[in-house]
Amino acid sequence: MATQISREKVFFAFSPALKEIARIPQGEEVVMETHDCFEGQIQTTNDLVDSLDWNHVNPATGPLYIEGALPGDVLRIDLLEISVGKQASMVTLPGEGALGDVITEMETSILKFENDQIVFKNKVRVPMRPMIGVIGVAPADSAVPNGTPGPHGGNMDCTLITAGNSIYFTVGVEGAMFGAGDLHAAMGDGEIVICGAETPGVVRFKAEVVDLKGLPTPFIETEKLVAVIYSAPTVDEAASLATHRMAKFLTDFVKIPLNDAGMLMSLVGELKFCQVVDPLKTVRFEFPKAVLAEYGFQLRK
Amino acid sequence: MATQISREKVFFAFSPALKEIARIPQGEEVVMETHDCFEGQIQTTNDLVDSLDWNHVNPATGPLYIEGALPGDVLRIDLLEISVGKQASMVTLPGEGALGDVITEMETSILKFENDQIVFKNKVRVPMRPMIGVIGVAPADSAVPNGTPGPHGGNMDCTLITAGNSIYFTVGVEGAMFGAGDLHAAMGDGEIVICGAETPGVVRFKAEVVDLKGLPTPFIETEKLVAVIYSAPTVDEAASLATHRMAKFLTDFVKIPLNDAGMLMSLVGELKFCQVVDPLKTVRFEFPKAVLAEYGFQLRK
Repeated sequence: MATQISREKVFFAFSPALKEIARIPQGEEVVMETHDCFEGQIQTTNDLVDSLDWNHVNPATGPLYIEGALPGDVLRIDLLEISVGKQASMVTLPGEGALGDVITEMETSILKFENDQIVFKNKVRVPMRPMIGVIGVAPADSAVPNGTPGPHGGNMDCTLITAGNSIYFTVGVEGAMFGAGDLHAAMGDGEIVICGAETPGVVRFKAEVVDLKGLPTPFIETEKLVAVIYSAPTVDEAASLATHRMAKFLTDFVKIPLNDAGMLMSLVGELKFCQVVDPLKTVRFEFPKAVLAEYGFQLRK
Repeated sequence: MATQISREKVFFAFSPALKEIARIPQGEEVVMETHDCFEGQIQTTNDLVDSLDWNHVNPATGPLYIEGALPGDVLRIDLLEISVGKQASMVTLPGEGALGDVITEMETSILKFENDQIVFKNKVRVPMRPMIGVIGVAPADSAVPNGTPGPHGGNMDCTLITAGNSIYFTVGVEGAMFGAGDLHAAMGDGEIVICGAETPGVVRFKAEVVDLKGLPTPFIETEKLVAVIYSAPTVDEAASLATHRMAKFLTDFVKIPLNDAGMLMSLVGELKFCQVVDPLKTVRFEFPKAVLAEYGFQLRK
């Protein structure tokens, strides 16, 4: 039976000082509840962002101690299922986000869920595409607030972090100290006003240490592709680093000659935005698994 | 019968001084041949980039004078069909592109076409996805080399510029002086080593002035979405401007209130890379037409 983790215990920074709330054996299913990014403070259109307690924003449930995970290990999280809550919220924050210079009015919108669709202002229906905004492990050195992405994961807001996919992290401290939260019922690449359809939910997953030391993490695996995620102060820097790290993965792990790797990245690789609104910007470089297979490489033996 | 334009007459800068090679009535089909971006200088793996005459790179066929197109008009180009040549080339350019700091060896690769697939080094087969790299109209003020993108179009390297889609430009000079070239049999978003599968080809299209003055051009329309394209010295700047111009389109043309526009852009809009390797970087912001329809807006009356 799966281990159940309630959303009662949360943390607000991925830190080497975190103390676990539970120990999880590798390969065992975990069913973990998460708060929305506002820790439930926004329930109606009257709950505006100026009434928020900002010390309770971006909670991650956890941390979970993954048994046997040691610093330097690569930890694979298989995301098996993501269920969302009963509704979602979106807000505008004058002065913040990619349109903060033109948006002047604070507003909260409550989005209902109906038949796997999200209903915006009783007018627009868009497909449900649940994903995880904040997910990661404790860094080895210093604490990173949950609102910030980095090499340890955190607030990457990457739409590939969804059920059916796997995400790989490099373990920073013994037990990894894994946590997640900030689900979005849907979000577009870019996350223009710094929110998706913010919702509480439940994540079913399992964690396992895999023999891929040196993998450029955070690293994503879907049915069709792999992706390297990188966060940096500017999109240009994040894009350059994501590109270089994917090239290194293709040459070092897949053993594709560098020129071929570069040409294939130009031909069928895809540089994509995750978000442009957090303290660091996040970019991913996607590459098709079908090409890796032609070079005899597979992530799972 | 469609007007036939051979690839014999080309130009290398979109300029207000261009003289037309033909006059095209609006709404009439044109079948236009294009050179590859090397004007055919690379045919075998022995043709390395250090032997190139760089005065013959990025030719665009044209310019075509579109009858009745006046400065300030919005010109819609419906891309009806794109056929590629018999093969494509890709090259590595040490010192250039997103991996120019690590790529040290010049190399030319010739990619064969087989059954709608592109064959790389007799090893990897990828789907054919033909697109146009360079396309645009003469700017009103000064000349822009074809290798550079801008408000007039040019080297945008946007994978949405493909058959079935339409691209909108704001006319800079009388007759628009339209031209295109630099087809890619396929390319990934980012264009990491500054080339896709470079190929000559034939583009079938028609051009028409439409009643959409003030549209944020270059602007793309596909079956499912619209997109604003923007180019700037940095990706961050291009992303910000593409985002702001899409917001303005949604408020001014579609009449969506600004807060709703921002939240919808965050929920279902997508910021995407076109290329990060040309003198300016190019980004697009995509937004679903289904949402525009909910607000009673359609591009075509």
